[in-house]
Amino acid sequence: MILAIGSVALDTIKTPFGRTNASLGGSGTYFAISASFFTRVSLIGVIGTDFPKKYIEKMRLRNIDLTGLQIKNGRTFRWSGEYSFDLNNPKTLLTELNVFSSFNPCIPSEFRNHPYLFLGNIDPSLQLNVLKQMNEPRLIACDTIRYWIEKKPKELRRVVKKADIFFLNDSEAREFSREHNLKKTARFILSLGPRYVIIKKGEHGVLLFSKNSTFATPAFLLEDIFDPTGAGDSFAGGFMGYIAQKKSFSESSMRQAIVYGTIMASYCVEGLGARALLSLKQNNITRRYNEFKRFTQY
Amino acid sequence: MILAIGSVALDTIKTPFGRTNASLGGSGTYFAISASFFTRVSLIGVIGTDFPKKYIEKMRLRNIDLTGLQIKNGRTFRWSGEYSFDLNNPKTLLTELNVFSSFNPCIPSEFRNHPYLFLGNIDPSLQLNVLKQMNEPRLIACDTIRYWIEKKPKELRRVVKKADIFFLNDSEAREFSREHNLKKTARFILSLGPRYVIIKKGEHGVLLFSKNSTFATPAFLLEDIFDPTGAGDSFAGGFMGYIAQKKSFSESSMRQAIVYGTIMASYCVEGLGARALLSLKQNNITRRYNEFKRFTQY
Repeated sequence: MILAIGSVALDTIKTPFGRTNASLGGSGTYFAISASFFTRVSLIGVIGTDFPKKYIEKMRLRNIDLTGLQIKNGRTFRWSGEYSFDLNNPKTLLTELNVFSSFNPCIPSEFRNHPYLFLGNIDPSLQLNVLKQMNEPRLIACDTIRYWIEKKPKELRRVVKKADIFFLNDSEAREFSREHNLKKTARFILSLGPRYVIIKKGEHGVLLFSKNSTFATPAFLLEDIFDPTGAGDSFAGGFMGYIAQKKSFSESSMRQAIVYGTIMASYCVEGLGARALLSLKQNNITRRYNEFKRFTQY
Repeated sequence: MILAIGSVALDTIKTPFGRTNASLGGSGTYFAISASFFTRVSLIGVIGTDFPKKYIEKMRLRNIDLTGLQIKNGRTFRWSGEYSFDLNNPKTLLTELNVFSSFNPCIPSEFRNHPYLFLGNIDPSLQLNVLKQMNEPRLIACDTIRYWIEKKPKELRRVVKKADIFFLNDSEAREFSREHNLKKTARFILSLGPRYVIIKKGEHGVLLFSKNSTFATPAFLLEDIFDPTGAGDSFAGGFMGYIAQKKSFSESSMRQAIVYGTIMASYCVEGLGARALLSLKQNNITRRYNEFKRFTQY
């Protein structure tokens, strides 16, 4: 059972291969859909009264527990971005925080004993607030974005100190640690407290660091990528979902979880918005896992 | 026994971590030194009368056969480049072709039966010229650079058609095939004739493609990189050296060769110029190969 805190949004995405208009998005959403293939997820977030019922329905079909999803008067968090042909770093066309600007996660008492906690990339002050409400989860993972690294470095450090796993992408890791070399970056972050640091490099794969070992894996190589939105959150969802299902924190479980995260991210980017993830069949995950084995083993 | 054709140069390299002045360089040099840890290499190239004897001595110490290294009146090919902190794409400060501008590789008759041929990144017309002189090598590998993709596309295609293995880096592969997606890029190149395409992605690892399979591996993660000059050629040297030693073209040998190439490249970048490769001890290669296994297996 995972408790996940994150944004639930309506995204308008333009890519050279198509576009969506106010489609289901947000870091909490991608995380929860992805993790739902492995375990049950309770999603804490906020939406406005404009949030389409069909999206609620889609999440319910994935068996995501939405008890903690607040509905507030006003409009849902909206993001609009445009990708060019290389599908890297979208240009943000619009960010409307709307009801998300006053989001204050309140964890229902029945969720406070959840063993697995994922703190999506929200304000570190809110992440700390969530941590205070929880009864010693077995595993705490957190994610962040450049914005919080710049705006709330002290609060973010306090979150990282309490986390078991810290997810970031390579440029965030460099900015957070003020180091270019990723090995040094990871050593710095580990010195703050977490047992694991996971550095996501997009199409170039993932690095997993602990005090005693390092693991690297390439991304799954795809022929057609439609939309990278949500890939990092889908990765984290697959990773945490697998760990929660397996209930093991061994090095080998962590590595397998990295691969499952990689597989979920690869499905995510094959469709616009969350479409590909939502239409994914459970047995395709194992099929691609085996394909990935053949793709990487020597 | 590998026959390798490539440049032998005097490099002046500036990095934030140090500099060299007219140090031993060139694609043929890096390839030959790297491959020499696995098999015997005959190096075909040209140097000027200014080429320091100590560098000849260093290559002889690595048991490289220099019978085919022509000494011409004039100055040796010189290159000077400067790297900034991220150690990507050096700024070329100077290129003096000197004796290399009239280089016309003549393969001594005793070398024409060499079973393994490596055509370094010289003019494709010269690569074709070398191919004509050879008696059906068992394995032909070729490399190129952006310059030839742009200046001699027809000749380059004729080389690629005759090659078993084509090495390029990711941006070259994209330019050569006019495709962004690396899987499509590789499929296009394979359609021209080669059995294998190897796409080098620098710090992000390597991809190996054949008609029926794809293999990806990350680069070895280092804490201190001093100078990336020669990394691609050292990779090719380790790859070809291992294949020539093993005398096997099976998929599993090719994959292991990719890893040995990765290991040799990782040593190369740990020192300025060719220094780290030249001082490498044989048993360190196996040690790092095992370390790499632990770094990538799940």
